[in-house]
Amino acid sequence: MDSIFSDRISDVPRSFIREILKVAIDPSIISFAGGLPNRAFFPAEEIERATTRVFREYGRDIFQYGNSEGHLGLREYISERYRQKNLDIPVDNILITSGSQQGLDMLGKVLVNDGDGVVMEEPGYLGAIQAFSIYQPTFYSVPLNEDGIDTDKLAEVVKTGKPRLMYTVPNFQNPSGISYSDANRLKVAEILRGTKTIFIEDDPYGELRFTGERKRSFKEILPDNTVLLGSFSKTVVPGFRIGWVAAPAQIMEKLIIAKQATDLHTSHFTQSIIYWYLKENDVNAHISLIRQVYGKQCQAMLDSIGRHFPAGVTNTRPEGGMFLWAGLPGNLSALELFDLAVKDRVVFVPGDPFYINKTGTSTMRLNFSCVDEKTIDIGIERLGKAILTLLEKAG
Amino acid sequence: MDSIFSDRISDVPRSFIREILKVAIDPSIISFAGGLPNRAFFPAEEIERATTRVFREYGRDIFQYGNSEGHLGLREYISERYRQKNLDIPVDNILITSGSQQGLDMLGKVLVNDGDGVVMEEPGYLGAIQAFSIYQPTFYSVPLNEDGIDTDKLAEVVKTGKPRLMYTVPNFQNPSGISYSDANRLKVAEILRGTKTIFIEDDPYGELRFTGERKRSFKEILPDNTVLLGSFSKTVVPGFRIGWVAAPAQIMEKLIIAKQATDLHTSHFTQSIIYWYLKENDVNAHISLIRQVYGKQCQAMLDSIGRHFPAGVTNTRPEGGMFLWAGLPGNLSALELFDLAVKDRVVFVPGDPFYINKTGTSTMRLNFSCVDEKTIDIGIERLGKAILTLLEKAG
Repeated sequence: MDSIFSDRISDVPRSFIREILKVAIDPSIISFAGGLPNRAFFPAEEIERATTRVFREYGRDIFQYGNSEGHLGLREYISERYRQKNLDIPVDNILITSGSQQGLDMLGKVLVNDGDGVVMEEPGYLGAIQAFSIYQPTFYSVPLNEDGIDTDKLAEVVKTGKPRLMYTVPNFQNPSGISYSDANRLKVAEILRGTKTIFIEDDPYGELRFTGERKRSFKEILPDNTVLLGSFSKTVVPGFRIGWVAAPAQIMEKLIIAKQATDLHTSHFTQSIIYWYLKENDVNAHISLIRQVYGKQCQAMLDSIGRHFPAGVTNTRPEGGMFLWAGLPGNLSALELFDLAVKDRVVFVPGDPFYINKTGTSTMRLNFSCVDEKTIDIGIERLGKAILTLLEKAG
Repeated sequence: MDSIFSDRISDVPRSFIREILKVAIDPSIISFAGGLPNRAFFPAEEIERATTRVFREYGRDIFQYGNSEGHLGLREYISERYRQKNLDIPVDNILITSGSQQGLDMLGKVLVNDGDGVVMEEPGYLGAIQAFSIYQPTFYSVPLNEDGIDTDKLAEVVKTGKPRLMYTVPNFQNPSGISYSDANRLKVAEILRGTKTIFIEDDPYGELRFTGERKRSFKEILPDNTVLLGSFSKTVVPGFRIGWVAAPAQIMEKLIIAKQATDLHTSHFTQSIIYWYLKENDVNAHISLIRQVYGKQCQAMLDSIGRHFPAGVTNTRPEGGMFLWAGLPGNLSALELFDLAVKDRVVFVPGDPFYINKTGTSTMRLNFSCVDEKTIDIGIERLGKAILTLLEKAG
């Protein structure tokens, strides 16, 4: 049965992270490799109460097929929460998806023809690389700097490549933890204004800011071109697979057709539970707690890096989110470091999967959401020793 | 923002049925248009108990991200249930999907290149036409006869078109209610054996047989080529969006990559609820109840048709499922009949959306799962009068 597969599926990179996570199940290993929110802050009791409420409120109707657009109350809640941030996004422009990963799949479906240009951040979010690969675009990688995307390179790519899409995570990016400054955002908007490039602003971590000032959304500064993706995975729970797409009316119409063709609709049962959870609880207090803990853990990791990493290692200083990004000196291979580190019972994600067509990179992603401050210090110390060992081997 | 869309999305037919269902909300209208399971048989209390069990058994872990393959216990249950029907399908060959609609999307993704041949039944399932359209195949329509698919036409299409896929609903097909006889199945298997055509056996209604003998699955008679799709939507509840794909190992490997790229995984929360429901209840007794009621309602519809429809109207006699199929005499247009019938407060689905590139057809789909016997008689009487009126007009 050779050659029975579509060309598109052979273009999708496998998730190296999946393999790493298997290693990390060993409880004696300290893992900075995960990309998971911290389970300690899942509002378990509140969700159980919301579930009881759903059974009472909807009766049997909650088990029937539902509409493709999603639970109306939930979409109203999302619209209202945007309004509180001065974003005017009507309910009709919001579609509930099975996590934001599905939003990416559907945007690829609806917008990308074979060979169309898709601008990606470098390093970029692996899930987006996978989702868009299915639709066989030409990827253009544009490097991230400390304050956002490289606008010179972007201007060049937009001019020559006339990309169909540009995909970004402007707040506390996965994998780098970098955020776009206001100035960088304005420059990006200027480059894209008047073009036919659709700008995808993926914002799963936006609510998880623990320092610095909130930045303006691209939906505000480039409204006609921007599609905004959101998710409850990092603020409530990921396991219900509830996210959303906020898009201009013309794109929304096509997304609804795609949603029907893809899975008819996302479960209204889980949508309703999230809705009642949001309606009946102090969500801001809940998110504030997550922010505090992640903020402390991020600071602990930065402090430990200062103490234990050898000179020459670079790292980002995230203002929010779940990840930071480190670079090894002298082009040391992060994959080689991984092999050393796992023997010392600490793991992370080597940078390779976050690049398109680059291997042997000297960068790595470190997750701080799931490890307590004390364990962070032990893990970073082990990792620092492994880096030293690798440096000595190379030197 | 013209021409920003992919070619593939413009090929997807819109669901006419969606529009009809909006009309059918008026409670004075009798609807044979729906495609829904009867909500009276959703096991609401049992599901609520299973949900409580899930909260107790899994704690917070149920809210975390899960694996892409799906809940292991649920996959074991599915495998075991197949074994009871003499089908050997290992757990590793079963992937949980967000309804079988998502199985169709992923099979299109993994198997279909632009222009590849896809054989469809005529009339065929609209959801499959929509799902595969995304991947821009060349459709080959092969007519259904009373005992299954037209094998002469199929043999010709397989020989000349070398299709990549063949999509079928061999048991109580949607929209026609037709089932493939054992002889027809063997002939189809003979035509496909040794070819590279993947045979998709979609079986959402298989458990809903109310008369006649169970037929052999294509998984049994054409194992290497067959991908089997199943769903809990018609036997438990549709609103959780839980279905599955059972496929040979080589295809499964690609489907898992596609699943990750599409939405990471289906909610393990809803999967677990279904699992505990199945484990702790007499599912066979539950399905038997649904079968009895649908069987009675189908018979009532057949009886009413006998009493109220004018001579010359043809109809299928389903052995299970939720639909029957009727044909108007003298090429009368079912769309014209719809306009008359809705004034008499009865609706159905005119045949057009179930054909690829055919309009003005004289066929229609009648659903019997959601209407009680008495109401069926009133509705069919109204519809009979509307047919008579149309016949007289045509004259």
